[in-house]
Amino acid sequence: MKASVFIATSLDGYIARLDGSLDWLPGDDVEEHGFTEFFASVDALVIGRKTFETVLTFGQWAYGTKPVIVLTSHPGAVIPPPGAVCEAMDASPAEVVARLSSLGIEHIYVDGGITIQRFLAAGLIQRVIITRIPVLIGSGVPLFGHLSSDIRFEHVKTQAYNSGLVQSEYRVVA
Amino acid sequence: MKASVFIATSLDGYIARLDGSLDWLPGDDVEEHGFTEFFASVDALVIGRKTFETVLTFGQWAYGTKPVIVLTSHPGAVIPPPGAVCEAMDASPAEVVARLSSLGIEHIYVDGGITIQRFLAAGLIQRVIITRIPVLIGSGVPLFGHLSSDIRFEHVKTQAYNSGLVQSEYRVVA
Repeated sequence: MKASVFIATSLDGYIARLDGSLDWLPGDDVEEHGFTEFFASVDALVIGRKTFETVLTFGQWAYGTKPVIVLTSHPGAVIPPPGAVCEAMDASPAEVVARLSSLGIEHIYVDGGITIQRFLAAGLIQRVIITRIPVLIGSGVPLFGHLSSDIRFEHVKTQAYNSGLVQSEYRVVA
Repeated sequence: MKASVFIATSLDGYIARLDGSLDWLPGDDVEEHGFTEFFASVDALVIGRKTFETVLTFGQWAYGTKPVIVLTSHPGAVIPPPGAVCEAMDASPAEVVARLSSLGIEHIYVDGGITIQRFLAAGLIQRVIITRIPVLIGSGVPLFGHLSSDIRFEHVKTQAYNSGLVQSEYRVVA
């Protein structure tokens, strides 16, 4: 099974302000930058509870009928919205991967700062696509976190968009 | 006067490990990525005391006869090596810019984490060239720091190198 990250960060590496706000992200008028194609390529999502709660505030459930695993130490507190294919689990990255593999899932989309950090630290991410927004926000929720050893990446490709977004795709070096 | 930053960071935004070490940077066999041309375009450098001390460990003085200002609260403790055109100052970014402008300096190279952060926060950087090394080091000295308000950038260009380095140039939006 393959796990990918597709995420936007500020130039100073944050994925949200400290209060979770995303007002610094470009609006809906920004050009498509590959998300639709990426999303179509994944079989399931694995997100953290905070991302789940942020997504709930968007109104319409963002993930359609794509299976979504919400990682949380309190699975009973996660109430999926009507129509969502969504299950809460209290599990390690390795357990999630084993479980989803056994269901025939081949490609997962791992999202949310802490969840991405846990999967990276466990060596369970194969591909990272980072889109840099040209702004410094000074503080916030960091994409990356502490590691017990370096993780090397191999650069696959980089594309700059007219809006100023710069998207780089990397493979994690095993 | 124009002030530029030209710096390499890890993918997680660090310019050095916590102990100052740069062992995660690619070695001398990496292709030239514009530093020689950039360095030729600057009239003077402004660096912090920590960068000054790191540069001293390189053996040969890295800046030739280019004028170098070392910012420090203890100017008397900075002993320039023989041949260096180097002066220590206890001054704010605005004072440094005023002083260098009065000497006819037109383009400065601002280097070192804290010094870059102080100049950015003071609105005295016009251009930032960041070269991302494809590695996560997990902790270290961050390039960017806290800000009292967002700083927006305009993307100028991005180039990917065969070694996996990705270099983006930005103009600071006034």
